[in-house]
Amino acid sequence: MNDSTHTTRIPLAERVLEVNDTIAAQNRAELARLGIFSVDIIGAPGSGKTALLEATLRVLAERRHPATHRGPAVLVGDLATRRDGDRLARWCDKVVQISTGQGCHLEANHVRDAMRGIDLATVDLLFIENVGNLICPVGFDLGQSAKVGIFSLTEGDDKAAKHPYLVEAADLILLNKIDLLPYLTFDRSVFHADVRLLNPSVPVLEVSATTGQGFDEWLAWLERRPAVDPAADLAV
Amino acid sequence: MNDSTHTTRIPLAERVLEVNDTIAAQNRAELARLGIFSVDIIGAPGSGKTALLEATLRVLAERRHPATHRGPAVLVGDLATRRDGDRLARWCDKVVQISTGQGCHLEANHVRDAMRGIDLATVDLLFIENVGNLICPVGFDLGQSAKVGIFSLTEGDDKAAKHPYLVEAADLILLNKIDLLPYLTFDRSVFHADVRLLNPSVPVLEVSATTGQGFDEWLAWLERRPAVDPAADLAV
Repeated sequence: MNDSTHTTRIPLAERVLEVNDTIAAQNRAELARLGIFSVDIIGAPGSGKTALLEATLRVLAERRHPATHRGPAVLVGDLATRRDGDRLARWCDKVVQISTGQGCHLEANHVRDAMRGIDLATVDLLFIENVGNLICPVGFDLGQSAKVGIFSLTEGDDKAAKHPYLVEAADLILLNKIDLLPYLTFDRSVFHADVRLLNPSVPVLEVSATTGQGFDEWLAWLERRPAVDPAADLAV
Repeated sequence: MNDSTHTTRIPLAERVLEVNDTIAAQNRAELARLGIFSVDIIGAPGSGKTALLEATLRVLAERRHPATHRGPAVLVGDLATRRDGDRLARWCDKVVQISTGQGCHLEANHVRDAMRGIDLATVDLLFIENVGNLICPVGFDLGQSAKVGIFSLTEGDDKAAKHPYLVEAADLILLNKIDLLPYLTFDRSVFHADVRLLNPSVPVLEVSATTGQGFDEWLAWLERRPAVDPAADLAV
């Protein structure tokens, strides 16, 4: 399809991504120096990113050894409202809400600036909850250790195929709201087959932030801190 | 927050929008000349846009007078796959699938090009199903008569407040998947109050593409072809 506006946009898009990648590399070096494992969580509005983090932070707090002086922190991006930040602050004392205005994704400079608001010496795990959007966040490296793509049952079993760039870029796929399976027409085999075609090696975990299903595997994945190839984040 | 990449982007974004608006105005004039009422449907991935259209097309076909020679057509945007187009083609013989690649929204030139693939003399109602994204599509005028924002119960009751630009720009808000209310924690009064704060005059219909709830009101709204102010589409 002839797309005249697209061709005019390429040069600037490249420059924006170049600036972003430079800052992302600085973020990555800083986080590595401090031994912080960081996760960029990408999913549609209502896929359950905040609910998953609430449940995760609660379990991490319960399991945390009293002598440990380091714990999790969260950066959370939204167009508007502080609602997610307020929800997460009930479970974690290091939460920074990032308001993007009309911005449809987080960029590395948002993460850099938000990191300055946290005492990173007390952090060993950094969650970055991206803006609710399955498309735009995928192309922007934030300096994270790993990208987690989250889909939910209520979105339908066709969403992996319809969002191939996220599936290809993800280091882990979570299929959330698995507790709603009895009430929906969702063919799990379709979803899993589509993921496999796009990304043969990515682990897929079925989880429910409501019932806790799959949380042992999710927390074990976080604990393993899988080494990922930063260059792969840019292969979009 | 200091956002250095943002400031460099403004001039080009303005130029892109200017080109888009010129084409959108041409689309609008062409659709008006042909007496076609057109609806841009914007919602998150999995909010039920395609299911809503399937059910709508089915009912429209049932109610259509045999002597009528004009009917609905659909343009449907996705990053990848022809799945939505194939689903809709079961109910409508004029469907064009638009593949945006990595593009996170439809632009006016997509609509112009796709319109060329349809015999518009046989069309009186044009549905444009935008790419599943609550953010980016809002800022791009396509030349449509009206913008419909679709939210679903499964996304949570906070999504109107978190996506104010869509709520402000919408000529109609649909709250879909109302049949799932018994299985979810969704406070309808929160959702409705947030919509009212942002857009005091927009009609809100609770619908279910599965049970048909609210469809009489939705079809009546389509039939009334409410006159809307095209300038309002750009007030984002």
